Amino acid sequence: MPQTLLSAASSPREAREQIRSGQWASHTSGIAAGFAQTNLIILPAEAASEFLQFCQANPKACPLLDVTAVGSPAPTGLGENIDLRHDLPAYHIYRHGVLEETRADIAALWQDDFVAFSIGCSFSFEEALLNEGVEVRHARLKRNVPMYRTNIPLISAGRFYGNLVVSLRPMSAAHAIRAIQITTDMPRVHGAPVHLGDPALIGISDINTPDFGDAPTLETGDLPVFWACGVTPQLALENVRLPLAIAHSPGHMLITDIPNHRLKYG
Amino acid sequence: MPQTLLSAASSPREAREQIRSGQWASHTSGIAAGFAQTNLIILPAEAASEFLQFCQANPKACPLLDVTAVGSPAPTGLGENIDLRHDLPAYHIYRHGVLEETRADIAALWQDDFVAFSIGCSFSFEEALLNEGVEVRHARLKRNVPMYRTNIPLISAGRFYGNLVVSLRPMSAAHAIRAIQITTDMPRVHGAPVHLGDPALIGISDINTPDFGDAPTLETGDLPVFWACGVTPQLALENVRLPLAIAHSPGHMLITDIPNHRLKYG
Repeated sequence: MPQTLLSAASSPREAREQIRSGQWASHTSGIAAGFAQTNLIILPAEAASEFLQFCQANPKACPLLDVTAVGSPAPTGLGENIDLRHDLPAYHIYRHGVLEETRADIAALWQDDFVAFSIGCSFSFEEALLNEGVEVRHARLKRNVPMYRTNIPLISAGRFYGNLVVSLRPMSAAHAIRAIQITTDMPRVHGAPVHLGDPALIGISDINTPDFGDAPTLETGDLPVFWACGVTPQLALENVRLPLAIAHSPGHMLITDIPNHRLKYG
Repeated sequence: MPQTLLSAASSPREAREQIRSGQWASHTSGIAAGFAQTNLIILPAEAASEFLQFCQANPKACPLLDVTAVGSPAPTGLGENIDLRHDLPAYHIYRHGVLEETRADIAALWQDDFVAFSIGCSFSFEEALLNEGVEVRHARLKRNVPMYRTNIPLISAGRFYGNLVVSLRPMSAAHAIRAIQITTDMPRVHGAPVHLGDPALIGISDINTPDFGDAPTLETGDLPVFWACGVTPQLALENVRLPLAIAHSPGHMLITDIPNHRLKYG
């Protein structure tokens, strides 16, 4: 089999086909530019309505783009011929609230009571920022975005509770103002920032040691700008201790057929 | 003559009548709530097209709401029966670029070559902030807004040049994000902030000693948020050294018939 290479120019369908067949196992940042990628949470139906309420109550962290029918691996709102059992490069497998393993395919684990939730991803607004000349530092430096647990409580729903996780993008004040304007118009992919300025005010004691992702690269004059992060629901999931639940591995997203511009107002 | 008392409940026409007759000589903050107030610059016609270009080139500092016909004291775009020779409580008189005196009426100084420029005022967006629960510290404490010269150069036009003057509103990060969203939709009254965070980055060495207005009252967790300020054109006016030019005295504005909500998009 020839070596395959996905790129910004790949179509979403081509990207999913190579991922499904196991030819692409890496992260999806920068693949199929212009199309939305999504976070994934898969739960048994008995917990689905609670999680749905949790997402509705916390839309900045969990902006829902699709919910599947019970037992169906097809997120019909996100594109044609998508199969959530195969079409992400890597999955996190949680058993009793513990992340036990990472798999490249979850067909062997699929249950006919599973419901899959697809949640908007900051990759969409990062593209919008870059298109308007706003710096996205970690992307420029080919690093993962820094993510932090905060002391900002989420609204609980049934067994789901926890604190918000945020992602950090340091930038100049002028870029921060522009970034707030741009992301305000994209509520389905986390929307406007939740905080900016002093990290200690939201419970982040050391900005140089994120809880997830890579350490930030800070420059003189930077203003730290924090957005609600799609990792948030995985932490809430840990709290519920379901026998089996599945999420995407961070950075290894579903590539949808939805153009990013469709996630903007107007 | 009975003591008169203007208030938030006064109509713009009632307010202008009392100001015109000399019954009200104080500042106009809080008078005729819901209606836009404007900054004023009056120049001889020979400098008018240069100043118009200056405003067009620097719309955040100088958002033009009305320009009168040569020799006319009536800003017809702002309401009925307005006479700019009498209808502001206090005027700054500049001779050869120097602020020489403050007057309550400028009828005796009016020239048939005068052109009057009415410029949007932050009072309009402060009302929008308050309506959405965003703190406006100086208003709550009945103080004047702190204003600062910056090192941010304006785009020059003819003889008009200078640096931007900004007003400061300290608030929490969450309020700052909301304030950016609200004022982004009000470009005719200075629009979105021009800076937030470290004052030194825009040339402000001591935030506690503003160049105009009252000192700020800072609280723990405050983020300083800076907007372009309507005092900016008065400083540019000083640089041109015209034989005679007139402006409003800060805080002593024209009360127009324009509802503030008409200065919002959409």
